[in-house]
Amino acid sequence: MTHITPTLKDCELLDQLDPLRNLRHQFDLPSGVIYLDGNSLGALPKSVPARVAQAVTREWGQDLIRSWNTAGWFTLPQRVGDKIARVIGAKTGEVMAADSTSINLFKVLAAALHIASTDHPHKRTIVSERSNFPTDLYIAEALCQERGLTLQLVETEDIPAALQADVAVLMLTHVNYRTGAMHDMPARTAQAHAQGILTVWDLAHSAGAVPVDLNGSDADFAVGCGYKYLNGGPGAPAFVWVHPRHIDRFWSPLAGWWGHAATFAFTPDYQPASGITRYQCGTPPILSLTALDCGLDVLLSVEPLGGMAALRQKSLALTGLFMQLVRTQLHGQGFGMATPTQEDQRGSQVSLTRAEGAYAIVQALIARGVIGDFRAGDGGQQPDILRFGFAPLYLGYADVWHAAEQLRQVMASGEWRDARCAHQHAVT
Amino acid sequence: MTHITPTLKDCELLDQLDPLRNLRHQFDLPSGVIYLDGNSLGALPKSVPARVAQAVTREWGQDLIRSWNTAGWFTLPQRVGDKIARVIGAKTGEVMAADSTSINLFKVLAAALHIASTDHPHKRTIVSERSNFPTDLYIAEALCQERGLTLQLVETEDIPAALQADVAVLMLTHVNYRTGAMHDMPARTAQAHAQGILTVWDLAHSAGAVPVDLNGSDADFAVGCGYKYLNGGPGAPAFVWVHPRHIDRFWSPLAGWWGHAATFAFTPDYQPASGITRYQCGTPPILSLTALDCGLDVLLSVEPLGGMAALRQKSLALTGLFMQLVRTQLHGQGFGMATPTQEDQRGSQVSLTRAEGAYAIVQALIARGVIGDFRAGDGGQQPDILRFGFAPLYLGYADVWHAAEQLRQVMASGEWRDARCAHQHAVT
Repeated sequence: MTHITPTLKDCELLDQLDPLRNLRHQFDLPSGVIYLDGNSLGALPKSVPARVAQAVTREWGQDLIRSWNTAGWFTLPQRVGDKIARVIGAKTGEVMAADSTSINLFKVLAAALHIASTDHPHKRTIVSERSNFPTDLYIAEALCQERGLTLQLVETEDIPAALQADVAVLMLTHVNYRTGAMHDMPARTAQAHAQGILTVWDLAHSAGAVPVDLNGSDADFAVGCGYKYLNGGPGAPAFVWVHPRHIDRFWSPLAGWWGHAATFAFTPDYQPASGITRYQCGTPPILSLTALDCGLDVLLSVEPLGGMAALRQKSLALTGLFMQLVRTQLHGQGFGMATPTQEDQRGSQVSLTRAEGAYAIVQALIARGVIGDFRAGDGGQQPDILRFGFAPLYLGYADVWHAAEQLRQVMASGEWRDARCAHQHAVT
Repeated sequence: MTHITPTLKDCELLDQLDPLRNLRHQFDLPSGVIYLDGNSLGALPKSVPARVAQAVTREWGQDLIRSWNTAGWFTLPQRVGDKIARVIGAKTGEVMAADSTSINLFKVLAAALHIASTDHPHKRTIVSERSNFPTDLYIAEALCQERGLTLQLVETEDIPAALQADVAVLMLTHVNYRTGAMHDMPARTAQAHAQGILTVWDLAHSAGAVPVDLNGSDADFAVGCGYKYLNGGPGAPAFVWVHPRHIDRFWSPLAGWWGHAATFAFTPDYQPASGITRYQCGTPPILSLTALDCGLDVLLSVEPLGGMAALRQKSLALTGLFMQLVRTQLHGQGFGMATPTQEDQRGSQVSLTRAEGAYAIVQALIARGVIGDFRAGDGGQQPDILRFGFAPLYLGYADVWHAAEQLRQVMASGEWRDARCAHQHAVT
């Protein structure tokens, strides 16, 4: 299949044979749209409207304060965390749904720095990638500034050389938000540990998209996002994981009452709860958390169909198909491939580069119902990017074919040169 | 009215004459329930189910990522903040809805400590009340521990004497969560400022319950809760306010991308946005924020009826009536009054003490449809408390009469001694 260009008919056949084909029926997708932005905001599971309505009308409206017990609101962050654990190689009780990715990153970075400074006081540097997601870099920068530490940003290929004796923490995003390039988590972790360096992983673009094995990788800390491939809805709570060897050694300065050993004892002094509970802080947003719970149920319905391995297989087939169609159908149109073609080096998105017009081309595609997004370059090393996420839960092979075909038509017609390009904000 | 016990008929007449009587029709309250726990979780506004359903089904489900612009998700935290500003004496653009109260407290305490250490490096103490809400104390304790500062907890009456030259910050909750006792914000702030001390106010039990004038009080920093008297739903986002004289002097270590000057420029280095925007961190939970937006619309509908002053007048009348009924109808039943009887010293709740049985009495009342809550004492100075919140938006005089009458019957019958007392968790 690498040399023959698949036809629409081929793709429709692949869809018919796809063992995961029925999962898309669990989503409510708008008609006439091919949604390739699930890496930014996942689609709406059909179960959400009724479940959220129940949380609003019955749990809040009728049962009121009692719902903290009767509807299980108290335990919801932990129960949602336990569901997330199943797709990131963590155990029950190791993951908590809480706050935002940025805030959870602050918690685990603070914990990692505390542990590093206790065990190895001379280690005073955080290493990360210059191309890491900005909020990760901002949080690390602020912590370093406050504590007189150094944040060292390097290119991907320079990571191994940067893992020197003075480094306390290696902080990486598993799948890069721009390029979709994926780190080898076990290998990177082993490299870091060999130098006594702790690892902090951001799983924003990998949880629910690619198999992750935190315990198997011997990782130290992880955070991730609820509103991308977990389909938890806009601004859904994020999650946090800490390896059991670290969990009881520290609590973050975000020492709120929900992380207390006895929240409702209302004691004036802080005693952290044991385990991941101490990584909670304040009262969780129940309505948003309820939607995330539904999103996870849909994701976990893949378990009897082969689980994350089956999802990964399909994801690779979808991204591989798109890459192939770009190569054959869009040859000579000026597109470069920002995403690694080697399967074990990419996540579930394909990013194309183009010297000019990337933004207008994305707009022209959106006008045709193919929703991807644009990420500006820095005018230097980082090029402009057209970003296409392939969420294997609700996309099929024919979708990919149509998306590539629409892109071909946009380029063949030249319509992108006329596209009305009102500036688009987008959330990664 | 202070010496004659009001009858039910009197109370029904007061309801008929109440200019705010129709506001309760904007809430969906369960039948057969008198809800006196709105200080813990506010009631459901009738507008919420349809509005949240629209956010789920149309904004998320159909418009997907585009809703960040088309549905105004980007600006929702600021717009909700602007609504909150109107009930706490802040100006448009000064308040942001964000995160939880605990996390916002961390942000402003970190900012206050930074400013204090810059202007007066010798000031290295935070003063607060021993009876302050625990999460506030935990956050302060963790910050002090991390930075080698001192957290000094004092009794309320000892606050003035504690405001010594080495104090950097006075951190108080405006209305006490247990007793309902209210601080004089302008006076306390003036006392603090006379010693060069910054003030941090937690408005959890005052925003929407009592008039607050942050700018008029010359306060420095404030945070508060969205799910109590603002009726934003379980775990609704909290809010944060910073006086304009401090706003651009510092950003907190929670330097996430939503507080960046150009969130979607994706630059690797942090540049804080100007104004209160820098007190945002990560992506906000849109569904929960949407419910809070509805809650605020209901609260603001009191503006043409006299605003917070009218609401306060009614609140004082309701709490005063309950106190009077307790004095006359429950005389000799062993109840003490934890809440100040002087009007300018209390919020919108009444807390009763009792040497024994407080928990069982609350349970017996709940069994009769009168929902208040219980707060355990510490076995020493702090007694057990029966806590009754009187949300003036949806409670009337007859409700208060019935609540007191049910309490009278619970005591007269002795049924509370048999009440099944399954342990109740409750969120303040």
